[in-house]
Amino acid sequence: MKFETILLVIEVGGTIAFAMSGLLEAIRKRMDIVGVFSVAFVSAFGGGTVRDVLLDRRPLFWIQNQEYVWIVLALALTAPLWLRTVRHRITENAMEFADACGLGLFAISGATIASAAGTPPLVSVLMGAITAVFGGVSRDVLCNEIPKVYQDHRPYTLCAVVGCVVLLGLHALGAAPHVSMIAGICTATGSRLLAVVFGWKLPAWPSLRD
Amino acid sequence: MKFETILLVIEVGGTIAFAMSGLLEAIRKRMDIVGVFSVAFVSAFGGGTVRDVLLDRRPLFWIQNQEYVWIVLALALTAPLWLRTVRHRITENAMEFADACGLGLFAISGATIASAAGTPPLVSVLMGAITAVFGGVSRDVLCNEIPKVYQDHRPYTLCAVVGCVVLLGLHALGAAPHVSMIAGICTATGSRLLAVVFGWKLPAWPSLRD
Amino acid sequence: MKFETILLVIEVGGTIAFAMSGLLEAIRKRMDIVGVFSVAFVSAFGGGTVRDVLLDRRPLFWIQNQEYVWIVLALALTAPLWLRTVRHRITENAMEFADACGLGLFAISGATIASAAGTPPLVSVLMGAITAVFGGVSRDVLCNEIPKVYQDHRPYTLCAVVGCVVLLGLHALGAAPHVSMIAGICTATGSRLLAVVFGWKLPAWPSLRD
Repeated sequence: MKFETILLVIEVGGTIAFAMSGLLEAIRKRMDIVGVFSVAFVSAFGGGTVRDVLLDRRPLFWIQNQEYVWIVLALALTAPLWLRTVRHRITENAMEFADACGLGLFAISGATIASAAGTPPLVSVLMGAITAVFGGVSRDVLCNEIPKVYQDHRPYTLCAVVGCVVLLGLHALGAAPHVSMIAGICTATGSRLLAVVFGWKLPAWPSLRD
Repeated sequence: MKFETILLVIEVGGTIAFAMSGLLEAIRKRMDIVGVFSVAFVSAFGGGTVRDVLLDRRPLFWIQNQEYVWIVLALALTAPLWLRTVRHRITENAMEFADACGLGLFAISGATIASAAGTPPLVSVLMGAITAVFGGVSRDVLCNEIPKVYQDHRPYTLCAVVGCVVLLGLHALGAAPHVSMIAGICTATGSRLLAVVFGWKLPAWPSLRD
Repeated sequence: MKFETILLVIEVGGTIAFAMSGLLEAIRKRMDIVGVFSVAFVSAFGGGTVRDVLLDRRPLFWIQNQEYVWIVLALALTAPLWLRTVRHRITENAMEFADACGLGLFAISGATIASAAGTPPLVSVLMGAITAVFGGVSRDVLCNEIPKVYQDHRPYTLCAVVGCVVLLGLHALGAAPHVSMIAGICTATGSRLLAVVFGWKLPAWPSLRD
């Protein structure tokens, strides 16, 4: 598979996963159709858009490939139809799984693009994390909450960071692009799923008051 | 009238209308002069700035035409003078009217600019909606509230979308630019005013829990 | 000293001061390591990043000079070590002092860069204020609070504005760059410190309801 094709598949998969997360969150908040679409849109495209603006890549991926926008629009408009069918099956577990897939896919796509743009490794890892996490951060800001990823003390962003380090490490060792990318995605998504299943917690941060 | 002149008149009118909305909101929140100016500034320029950043248009319109900034600054600084005179006359209705005008003007300006930049129709409509709505969304985020346009179940963003569709439709049918733009503005602003007057509501979104 | 060197020293100093402010705030909010680093990062780089995006300067200063990112990362990771030592000494006063230094340094750097990019004086002053204040505004938005600088009725942004006016005024009068920059920084930081020490208040804004 060509490099561009791999990136495309990754971005479509991540987009759907994150749009679903945002969609379900907005519906839970009882927003109207505009709010549901907007939050799904921001959840799906927020991270990649910030990455592209910071790196000055244009046209933005969802402007160049408007299929992405149609997908999110179709998801939002058809939600009443399939939500009636699946609403008893959409559990916390299903949302965590979709979110973990989006996390891994977006982190690796972000780090790959940043690295290809010539940014140093630290910044590439940061761009991977921003791509993966900023959609969710924006979603929480729009829903008037402190971003969950800053306070829940479970590894989330760190899984993205570890996946990006694996990607860049294998790349530096001479691995083929699709090998290092798949390894990075599996590391990020897998470590997130393990963290959820086993209830891993980050060590508490020393307080200023204790 | 030339195309550029039409765009200019639209942008000045929309800027004043949205700055007024932000100004009144910030004063109601009892912010200080810095907060009042900042919220008025973000309400007026937030949507257009995000549009220009996403489309990579520089210099930004308020940097190239600093008259816009002087207008908002003058509005904020002189507010204590004229607010004493008009405060009994600034009703909910007046604010809704100014806001509806800004909505139509900014939506059409955003969609026109995006379309002229070569984006496909779906993205042009989206850019019109972002230009019209993002200032208000930013205002609500800065005021620590869930964006009203996501939850109030009254058509607002949809009016901008309909106006942009009219604009692009007439343009595709070969109408003169100023005809399709005026028709688009009237559609967006008019449908918003009708929605407010008659209390139109969007159909409720199916809940996950009912 | 060369112009570039002055700018570099200013940016490093301002970055550390603002990262410290964000770091301490996030730790007070009991965020985890990801939240602490993210809030410190946004506090330190938010203003300058928005300035660079608005002016279309790339690569961003923290991408071109990744030392900045390492500094903030090192501050966040080592915080548990030195916070144990200094926690009884980090008082409100110390935080106000660091914040006032960052305010002056970032305002002057922002206005200088904008002015060098050819923006008119009003926009240069605005860019100085945005560079100085937007990191703190983003920090408060991420912490789910109304930005303090909009509501506390003590001069903060205004000190940045006055410093930028001094900078541009001296520059227009033919002063050497480093003279006008140091004068601007001293004006902004000094006036902020005086405002804190003497409890200066902005005059109350007329309410719509009184």
